[in-house]
Amino acid sequence: MSNPPQTPVVGMAGGGQLARMTQQAAIALGVPLRVLAGSADDSAAKVVADVQVGDDRALDDLMAFAKGCDVVTFDHEHVPDLHIREVEISGVPCRPGSAALAHAQDKLVMRDRLSAFGAPCPAYAPLPSADPVPALEAFGREHGWPVVLKATRGGYDGKGVWIADEPGVETAELVERLIGEGVDLMVEQHVQFRRELAALVARSPYGQGAAYPIVETVQNDGICVEVISPAPGLSGELAAEAQSLALRIADELGVAGLLAVELFETGAPEGGQGGGSGLVVNELAMRPHNSGHWTIEGARTSQFEQHLRAVLDLPLGSTEPTAPYTVMANVLGGDDPDVYSRYVHVMAHDPGVKVHMYGKESRPGRKIGHVTVLGDDLPDLRERARHAADYLRWGTAMKEHA
Amino acid sequence: MSNPPQTPVVGMAGGGQLARMTQQAAIALGVPLRVLAGSADDSAAKVVADVQVGDDRALDDLMAFAKGCDVVTFDHEHVPDLHIREVEISGVPCRPGSAALAHAQDKLVMRDRLSAFGAPCPAYAPLPSADPVPALEAFGREHGWPVVLKATRGGYDGKGVWIADEPGVETAELVERLIGEGVDLMVEQHVQFRRELAALVARSPYGQGAAYPIVETVQNDGICVEVISPAPGLSGELAAEAQSLALRIADELGVAGLLAVELFETGAPEGGQGGGSGLVVNELAMRPHNSGHWTIEGARTSQFEQHLRAVLDLPLGSTEPTAPYTVMANVLGGDDPDVYSRYVHVMAHDPGVKVHMYGKESRPGRKIGHVTVLGDDLPDLRERARHAADYLRWGTAMKEHA
Repeated sequence: MSNPPQTPVVGMAGGGQLARMTQQAAIALGVPLRVLAGSADDSAAKVVADVQVGDDRALDDLMAFAKGCDVVTFDHEHVPDLHIREVEISGVPCRPGSAALAHAQDKLVMRDRLSAFGAPCPAYAPLPSADPVPALEAFGREHGWPVVLKATRGGYDGKGVWIADEPGVETAELVERLIGEGVDLMVEQHVQFRRELAALVARSPYGQGAAYPIVETVQNDGICVEVISPAPGLSGELAAEAQSLALRIADELGVAGLLAVELFETGAPEGGQGGGSGLVVNELAMRPHNSGHWTIEGARTSQFEQHLRAVLDLPLGSTEPTAPYTVMANVLGGDDPDVYSRYVHVMAHDPGVKVHMYGKESRPGRKIGHVTVLGDDLPDLRERARHAADYLRWGTAMKEHA
Repeated sequence: MSNPPQTPVVGMAGGGQLARMTQQAAIALGVPLRVLAGSADDSAAKVVADVQVGDDRALDDLMAFAKGCDVVTFDHEHVPDLHIREVEISGVPCRPGSAALAHAQDKLVMRDRLSAFGAPCPAYAPLPSADPVPALEAFGREHGWPVVLKATRGGYDGKGVWIADEPGVETAELVERLIGEGVDLMVEQHVQFRRELAALVARSPYGQGAAYPIVETVQNDGICVEVISPAPGLSGELAAEAQSLALRIADELGVAGLLAVELFETGAPEGGQGGGSGLVVNELAMRPHNSGHWTIEGARTSQFEQHLRAVLDLPLGSTEPTAPYTVMANVLGGDDPDVYSRYVHVMAHDPGVKVHMYGKESRPGRKIGHVTVLGDDLPDLRERARHAADYLRWGTAMKEHA
């Protein structure tokens, strides 16, 4: 295929929904997107002309893929960092680069680096693979129970995270089993939080930064089910602090592309007594993020376009919101995989709801799409988003499934 | 490729920018889009996974293409109506269908049908291929000179339209030459208009209709260069009349999909003296239309999503505007085809401008993209859109090329 002169080809390793939605932005920018997908049935492979089917964790496949690209970026964190380094050595820039991405790939590396420049983190410690239980129990004695066990690498959507309520046989067995399976573990203080927030920023190689409004994320069983932008009732001071923190992290880590910082807002739960608010960093992601899907309609520049601009070292786009509030709800798979037949109700019921489906086979609990609504009446928006997401899942309102 | 159960495949004949932008909407809806493109280098072929390369005016290619589709629609008007009829007979619905589409393919058929139910049209007459000049001169005597000569079929962007200022040798030679080339001609009264408007509506097979705000279109040498939504200063009465007229035409003609009605607002030019305003139908298109590109960001439902919903017989989406004003400017090719290198200035200058490029080779005067800006300060928006479009064309502001 011939492309207009000088237009760079962006390669994205991974064929999931993030690559799929990046394609929508690439189409507008006239930038050819190549995708390295595990199969021609992957979410993004179904909607991109230039697909290489291969294993993005295999060096040969990655190197062959990178050869046709002017810049390589990622749909997920699971491409081995040494392979990314090989691509960089071959002369194709990776954005984010291997040095930055290490902090999104390894939670212990991230904690060490963030703590070093004073970003707020919970207390944490690595667990030695030899004799881990005494170290864990010592951590619990110092910081209190429960504690959070995390696989340092490879987790997502609540996978790779375990809560240990108290010391004892059960906890010891869990730790021994995981270490026996070859999982590298760390332990973190269990943070008391009021709610979860996310800060989304972009940083270009040139050094330009741009911050989106801070959002509230609502999780269910470790899976994000709803995002509200901006986070309702968040003080301007704390919002600015969260944006500055995310921009600082992007800068310190030398991120090129998007950076999503998942945050805990500490303090007593809403309506409860006690202490002021504060922020603690939970996780990092260096790519378009579920907490930023609302930007497709809710911000002047979608996170997908912003990521492309950043990895291409183009000037970043406006992050201005397009409505007072935007609510995004994830669509999870239900029992009946025929989601399309449920469009009629959802669209007739609410002509303003924006439906985004990922072309993925529906399996119970799997993220297969999301819906977005915009406006100024937040309770109404939340109800509309929830109704649409529930109906696409169940074919009826969620309450009838309670 | 396997798709989720029951999800219909939409086929679009033609691989231009309308199919390209339809792909962005198809991705969101999770609806697989198949494109019949003249070459793998076509605008849409570069961004769609499921492309058949073939000639959409050749019956065999069209029939083979349609076989894999649940519904077939069109990126342009140039697929022969008898071929569309064959597809319909084979059991694959075409939307719009051949009966409706005839009115967008043949200007004389359109005028006859519209006049029959009282839609406002200029005076018109067919020109006989034998001895056309006396008929033309009689028409000019009755309705005044100049008159407008039109090829009944195949025109676009000002092609297929000629102004004849007066009777005489020059006009006679033009008519004889065209008829000699096999062009079917008609003549129309030259309408005195204040400005050009466009009404965009959708109609589903179920019969649901939805109307977008009426826009003003600004033409230059027969090519639309700018669209302003809503048309500034248009009375609510005339706007409602234009919407009703377009919905009525969609209904009378049995359109399934989008219908764009290009209109003249009659009366003295702005600032001039004389008569009240009125509407006259200029042209029809039954597909996403250049006058509706503003809807991608400027309306809750883009025209591309709306077209897909309509051809799939899904409930139509909200046409509510997302900002007080939206301005779209077409990007035409300039002397230097390296448009990408000019992104840096355009994006740094104006982080809020939305750039849409079509992946087409730049040639002087060719439509290769468009830009959109939204807000409430119309003069500022027009200036911003013009600056971005001019800069992408010339690498400098237009005024320096004047």
